[in-house]
Amino acid sequence: MKFTKMHGLGNDFVVLDDSVEITDDLVRALCDRHFGVGADGVLTIGSTGDLVTMGYWNADGSEAEMCGNGLRCIARMAVDRGLADAGAFTVATPAGDRRVEVGREIRVDLGMPKVGGTTENGGFFFRNVNVGNPHAVLEVDDVSSVPVRDIGIAAQSSFRAGANVEFISIDGDRVEMRVWERGVGETLACGSGIVAGAAVARRNGGGDHIFVTMPGGTARVDFEDGGAWLVGPAEYVYEGVWPGPSRS
Amino acid sequence: MKFTKMHGLGNDFVVLDDSVEITDDLVRALCDRHFGVGADGVLTIGSTGDLVTMGYWNADGSEAEMCGNGLRCIARMAVDRGLADAGAFTVATPAGDRRVEVGREIRVDLGMPKVGGTTENGGFFFRNVNVGNPHAVLEVDDVSSVPVRDIGIAAQSSFRAGANVEFISIDGDRVEMRVWERGVGETLACGSGIVAGAAVARRNGGGDHIFVTMPGGTARVDFEDGGAWLVGPAEYVYEGVWPGPSRS
Repeated sequence: MKFTKMHGLGNDFVVLDDSVEITDDLVRALCDRHFGVGADGVLTIGSTGDLVTMGYWNADGSEAEMCGNGLRCIARMAVDRGLADAGAFTVATPAGDRRVEVGREIRVDLGMPKVGGTTENGGFFFRNVNVGNPHAVLEVDDVSSVPVRDIGIAAQSSFRAGANVEFISIDGDRVEMRVWERGVGETLACGSGIVAGAAVARRNGGGDHIFVTMPGGTARVDFEDGGAWLVGPAEYVYEGVWPGPSRS
Repeated sequence: MKFTKMHGLGNDFVVLDDSVEITDDLVRALCDRHFGVGADGVLTIGSTGDLVTMGYWNADGSEAEMCGNGLRCIARMAVDRGLADAGAFTVATPAGDRRVEVGREIRVDLGMPKVGGTTENGGFFFRNVNVGNPHAVLEVDDVSSVPVRDIGIAAQSSFRAGANVEFISIDGDRVEMRVWERGVGETLACGSGIVAGAAVARRNGGGDHIFVTMPGGTARVDFEDGGAWLVGPAEYVYEGVWPGPSRS
């Protein structure tokens, strides 16, 4: 079984053709970082009619609805494989159709985030942002020294279904950010979290183009055409052939 | 550049032909678990005259002398690639020549460990064992609940060049073990650590064949022919082609 390893901002994926039958055992075996290929999740790519199709599974085998960094990888590969022409097209994801653009840059529309009120937890005031999934954004002076894990875990008690917790420091249209993903831990990058952090910076007067730097790299969010377009890298790492689980 | 991903007890490696020029940048790029292939280290395989040759680099790019789990992978691949006949042969490593056997089992001789006295640190008495590199072995009641990280870090102050710290519970010829590797952290398996733990169990009357179970799986150590033979899996994970660093 051939696979392609790709990443967007260090958020890394095993990409398979959608002819492969995905099971949670397969996903877990592939994503294992010592006994398998190692990845944050598995993407599938295919097409039906005019639509490019994307599937996504988390490393634990659960099917997920959306992954902004993965969507960029699928968009790029769709053009390289001739499933779509460069320019603007649509990708059908488990969360619905998403607009993408592949040109000099790779842009994917994650939809306009909803910035709500604040939630207090442990003396901290988190800004509630919905990007299809729930986010809690905390402004801090210095993201490098903030106890991401402790605050990220503690904050979960204030959100019924949990929330991804973003820690941001804003300087105009520039945001430094770290994220605690619910059920995962701190990650190199989180696509919807980048949009959530950018939405708060925009609300603070940062404008319609916000640059967000995470440990995995820098992305830009363009607020235009009624959406929040996540712009950033989608890189091929290597091609491989998977013979099946290796653990004996 | 073609590579093979292999593992022994979850200790995982990118294996390259020794015609590849190894630089620390290449090793770090390959071993990066998000932007690269992801591995604990890079192995090279080659041959000169009758000898199979092995090179080993840690994930941080530093050249290392020996890796017992990696040596089993090289031994298996040497036979599969026709560099050696199945049975007993010798592999030239940076630490010197090592005897290996590839048959129904894969066995590698890491040399007879030297079991020394004890070193006290924080009220714990660590047994000093030298397997070419320094080990400090602590017997505990329950390896699953021991604070490996805290004790592992604290113990370093008692060893001039640091030491790998093994936590073991012994039941006859069976050992449960976790290890804190100096400069690395807790790992799924450590070849020389397994030999160190087995040597302590043998000294306690466990016999010449000791089974050691770590989070990555179970290995056996045979004390015979003047050596300590590490016996365990050496598995192919997949084949891949690496085009160069992906981080943009």
